Amino acid sequence: MADSDQHRRATFADRLADLVEARESQIVLGLDPDPMRLWPDALALVPADGSPVQRAAAAVRAHCAALIDAAGPACVAVKPQLACFERLGADGWAALAATVAHARERGLLVLADAKRGDISVSAAAYAQALVGSTPTPFGEVEGLGADAFTANPLLGVDALTPLVDGARAAGAGVFVLVRTSNPGAADIEDLVLAGDGDGDGDGDGGTVWERLARIVAQLGGSPGRSGLTDIGAVVGATAPEHVARMRELMPHAPFLLPGIGAQGGRVEDIAPAFAPGRAGGLVSASRSIATAHESTGAPPAAAARAEAERLRAAAWSW
Amino acid sequence: MADSDQHRRATFADRLADLVEARESQIVLGLDPDPMRLWPDALALVPADGSPVQRAAAAVRAHCAALIDAAGPACVAVKPQLACFERLGADGWAALAATVAHARERGLLVLADAKRGDISVSAAAYAQALVGSTPTPFGEVEGLGADAFTANPLLGVDALTPLVDGARAAGAGVFVLVRTSNPGAADIEDLVLAGDGDGDGDGDGGTVWERLARIVAQLGGSPGRSGLTDIGAVVGATAPEHVARMRELMPHAPFLLPGIGAQGGRVEDIAPAFAPGRAGGLVSASRSIATAHESTGAPPAAAARAEAERLRAAAWSW
Repeated sequence: MADSDQHRRATFADRLADLVEARESQIVLGLDPDPMRLWPDALALVPADGSPVQRAAAAVRAHCAALIDAAGPACVAVKPQLACFERLGADGWAALAATVAHARERGLLVLADAKRGDISVSAAAYAQALVGSTPTPFGEVEGLGADAFTANPLLGVDALTPLVDGARAAGAGVFVLVRTSNPGAADIEDLVLAGDGDGDGDGDGGTVWERLARIVAQLGGSPGRSGLTDIGAVVGATAPEHVARMRELMPHAPFLLPGIGAQGGRVEDIAPAFAPGRAGGLVSASRSIATAHESTGAPPAAAARAEAERLRAAAWSW
Repeated sequence: MADSDQHRRATFADRLADLVEARESQIVLGLDPDPMRLWPDALALVPADGSPVQRAAAAVRAHCAALIDAAGPACVAVKPQLACFERLGADGWAALAATVAHARERGLLVLADAKRGDISVSAAAYAQALVGSTPTPFGEVEGLGADAFTANPLLGVDALTPLVDGARAAGAGVFVLVRTSNPGAADIEDLVLAGDGDGDGDGDGGTVWERLARIVAQLGGSPGRSGLTDIGAVVGATAPEHVARMRELMPHAPFLLPGIGAQGGRVEDIAPAFAPGRAGGLVSASRSIATAHESTGAPPAAAARAEAERLRAAAWSW
């Protein structure tokens, strides 16, 4: 896999920082294809033969390619939502792999939005699936080939470690959920911990998400030449009041900031994320780009391109 | 899908309870296929042609079928670990679907060990993928067809709700991670919360996992005729001191208890789980069954059958 080796020469953090500068964009294009809301041009490309699932997967693949072609030039990465592909089974997974390849051909990084978390060998298997490869008696089997993936930290450090190790071995990154963009983040992530009163920063109260942030900083270690670590954080842009505190606890972690656009977050609220450099704050938008035509009346591709460029310019102006 | 309709007539909890009684087993056979540790007979069945990933997926499929045929008669369900299939991409997902079908043909329930968690439409898409179906312009696409799946609750109630709603609409269940079997469970799940001192049980301290347990009980609602709810909990059997407290907080939730065997848990430590009936405590074992031959020297199938039967009898004796 010479292309893969070439692609993976630098660490994830350094590749990310370089590409943000080269493309002058911090925008991550979310790919959440709903088979009932695909662009009409994509549906028109689907062959008339084939089973429903084959045709639906072909339509999803065509839609994602068109969306990447339209909005990709204003973006630094794509973020496929794995659930949207998995619901089409093996055909959906093949469409996902094709979408990853298409994004890479267009010079974009791929952040697999998987939110995986499991223990020991199962966690290691997820890393193999998303960014690594799997030894088999028939030869090595390449995984999805993403540049990074999102992970769920509920199961603790020993469950994150195989994900982090697997990512680093592949020159890839991990974005750990720290505080998500939904109201339900209050149920667990925002809970206040009892303090042990010894002031060592380990048992001194704070919230669950602050504890998660410390874990991310610990796993991230020292930054590379970009000033960033390979272990980042998912930080909902719908709670901008937390972004400065997040940056304090994770000074070198790249932040993946969903919730801009459709979920109500604003680029101007998240400026503290950009402290270690522009690549420190990646602005993720999905529906606001893919469905921009529904409010503007322009053709889907033109509307998506305009909305992505609007977001790019707004973020880059900070 | 007449077979599927037939299969789904009762709620998950009632089907589970009936099948535990009919098969006199609480044992859940974990399917965690590692391509480098498959049974030799399964490897021998793989055709000589095909790409490495096609051959590896065929071998995984044959291995899982052989393991189900050997150990399944002593079990009530299988629990495929999705990571182990995803690492073989679309071919792996096809092997997973074939394994689900094979388990169902053998009269077993299927608990998809996915540990999924996401927000709003993404969570709904995971439910479609695992237990439901997806509307498309080309017709409805059936998902994996599992009877239940595991879910990660870090993102809170509004993220669990689409999973629960999707499961219930399909007559399926959800097992929510409450306290896992790994040492790292101490990092987040065991954290002690600050109390609000009002004694209403909502902000009265306790641990993160106790809070998660309350959420599971709340989502589960009232039990059906079996005395169990469709929303269960994953409770590591490596911390037996917690099982009684779990049962107190979740009186009607079926518990999925991994960690027996290879991870050091013992059936006799988890008796409190069985309080609402035998189906209240499902004992999951993976490697201890699949690799039993490595310590006994017996043929793999015979060793797996003997170990599954040993576990079945041990659990049923309580």
